[in-house]
Amino acid sequence: MKSYAIIGTGAIGGYYGARLAAAGFDVHFLARNDYRYIRDNGLVIESKDGNFTLPRVNVYSSAADMPACDVAAITLKATANHILPEILPAVVKKDGAVLVMQNGFGYEEQVAKIVGPERVLGVLCFICSNKTGPGHIMHLDFGHVTVAQFTKDDTPSGITPLIKEVAADFTRAGITVHTAPDLGTARWKKLVWNIPYSGLSVVLSALTDAINKNPQSRELVVNLMHEVRAAARACGHPIEEGFVAKMISDTDSMTPYRTSMIIDYKEKRPMEVEAIFGNPLQAAKKAGAKMPLVEMLYQELKFMDENNK
Amino acid sequence: MKSYAIIGTGAIGGYYGARLAAAGFDVHFLARNDYRYIRDNGLVIESKDGNFTLPRVNVYSSAADMPACDVAAITLKATANHILPEILPAVVKKDGAVLVMQNGFGYEEQVAKIVGPERVLGVLCFICSNKTGPGHIMHLDFGHVTVAQFTKDDTPSGITPLIKEVAADFTRAGITVHTAPDLGTARWKKLVWNIPYSGLSVVLSALTDAINKNPQSRELVVNLMHEVRAAARACGHPIEEGFVAKMISDTDSMTPYRTSMIIDYKEKRPMEVEAIFGNPLQAAKKAGAKMPLVEMLYQELKFMDENNK
Repeated sequence: MKSYAIIGTGAIGGYYGARLAAAGFDVHFLARNDYRYIRDNGLVIESKDGNFTLPRVNVYSSAADMPACDVAAITLKATANHILPEILPAVVKKDGAVLVMQNGFGYEEQVAKIVGPERVLGVLCFICSNKTGPGHIMHLDFGHVTVAQFTKDDTPSGITPLIKEVAADFTRAGITVHTAPDLGTARWKKLVWNIPYSGLSVVLSALTDAINKNPQSRELVVNLMHEVRAAARACGHPIEEGFVAKMISDTDSMTPYRTSMIIDYKEKRPMEVEAIFGNPLQAAKKAGAKMPLVEMLYQELKFMDENNK
Repeated sequence: MKSYAIIGTGAIGGYYGARLAAAGFDVHFLARNDYRYIRDNGLVIESKDGNFTLPRVNVYSSAADMPACDVAAITLKATANHILPEILPAVVKKDGAVLVMQNGFGYEEQVAKIVGPERVLGVLCFICSNKTGPGHIMHLDFGHVTVAQFTKDDTPSGITPLIKEVAADFTRAGITVHTAPDLGTARWKKLVWNIPYSGLSVVLSALTDAINKNPQSRELVVNLMHEVRAAARACGHPIEEGFVAKMISDTDSMTPYRTSMIIDYKEKRPMEVEAIFGNPLQAAKKAGAKMPLVEMLYQELKFMDENNK
């Protein structure tokens, strides 16, 4: 059984780390503000798939105290990624894998610069989960992940042995896993959902169901999704046309969801504006594609982020 | 000295009506919620050009009680325009003029259907004024108006005798007046300012100075302005290119201003979304022009308006 370092014990790291620990993996959690609470009380997962608690977990307030693990999962907010060059070498073995489990775009490349490209996977999390208190995670809907391999030149890797290994671990932990031969396409597909719903949740101060219910904002979501799809194609990652309609109808049937971006905004934390908007805009621009509506959303969010301090 | 009916005694009607009354015109104010207060206390104008009070004014709670005047000035919110077919015939003489002093687009046409096109002027108000309480108007900046004549086919009227007459009255009341030979161009020019600042003031919950200060929202204002300018040209109303830069720098040097749209939003009143956004979008569409960024702002505002009840 492999050892896992979970870098950030929030809505993502808390949930998936707890699943891995409950399945018997040797899991080590890094926590900042919640360290004492988790040390004394463990983790509580309220899940649509059944609640469970881990009264005792291995938790650390500093990466320097952690053992080097077989796999490190980055589950920080992307806005905290500047700490990775210092942390990563300590928490993962020299030949260990690093899973980028964050929202947004461009972070596998950042991590590859620290540990080398062949050890980096993107693990895209399709989950509605919120941290409701220290060590307390509420899992509302979905929960599956897509695992894909980073490549230096953004070309498809196919399904590598490393993908299969990690997929097997997650499957063993009861998590539904998809594997993808092309990380770029997987990341762009996730943006098709993330860009409209994360952005508009903040600008409109709304949950997903309200955004879908109003005819004008619903139309705006569709327009934004098509723009992202066109940019993805320009970047060499075509997405089938029906994907937009599927994302809309999946959201229609989903539990009304408060995105992590609006939670960050309401709690006056920095939002992942560059991760979800700025970096894809840059990538599209490099490929000669414009996303005027996405850019407008980016500009609105930059204003709101700066004026939220 | 002509008689004036002021239909709506708020930030616009209260200010300009008071100026006309102070200059000796026979002014009759229609007020709804503020009727009793104004009847008992008159009007108080705090103005950057000098404060003044009118302790007694002719004020009415019903149009049926008002005398038919030489000129009727419509200073209602455009969202209340459905009452005009009933009110207008009562408050203006059969050959009297009607001044559309509202924000937005398309209302002269509506009024022309009630009183005939040759009697309808657009009076565009370039003023930062707010109603701070019943009968209490705060005039912060600017204050000039542009007077132009409605024509049925949206072609330039030139400077008609009626324009000159009304311009003379307003000038006598100490108001700086410009006259315009083409109402369409004048309306589109006003939209160049109104669309970005009114819309973004609500979406970003911000005053004009904050919108201009942030580099991303400033860029968004410029992008929106150019889009409006392109639509104006498509509609046969070209606006010189330097106008955008002038609007930006005028706003830079202007007193930080809370737009009437965000005041409506915060006080949970309906916003003039159709007036300022919906109607121009329709007009542009008819002329084969697209305004994708303006449409996105419209969609956002429609959502916010509907969810503000």
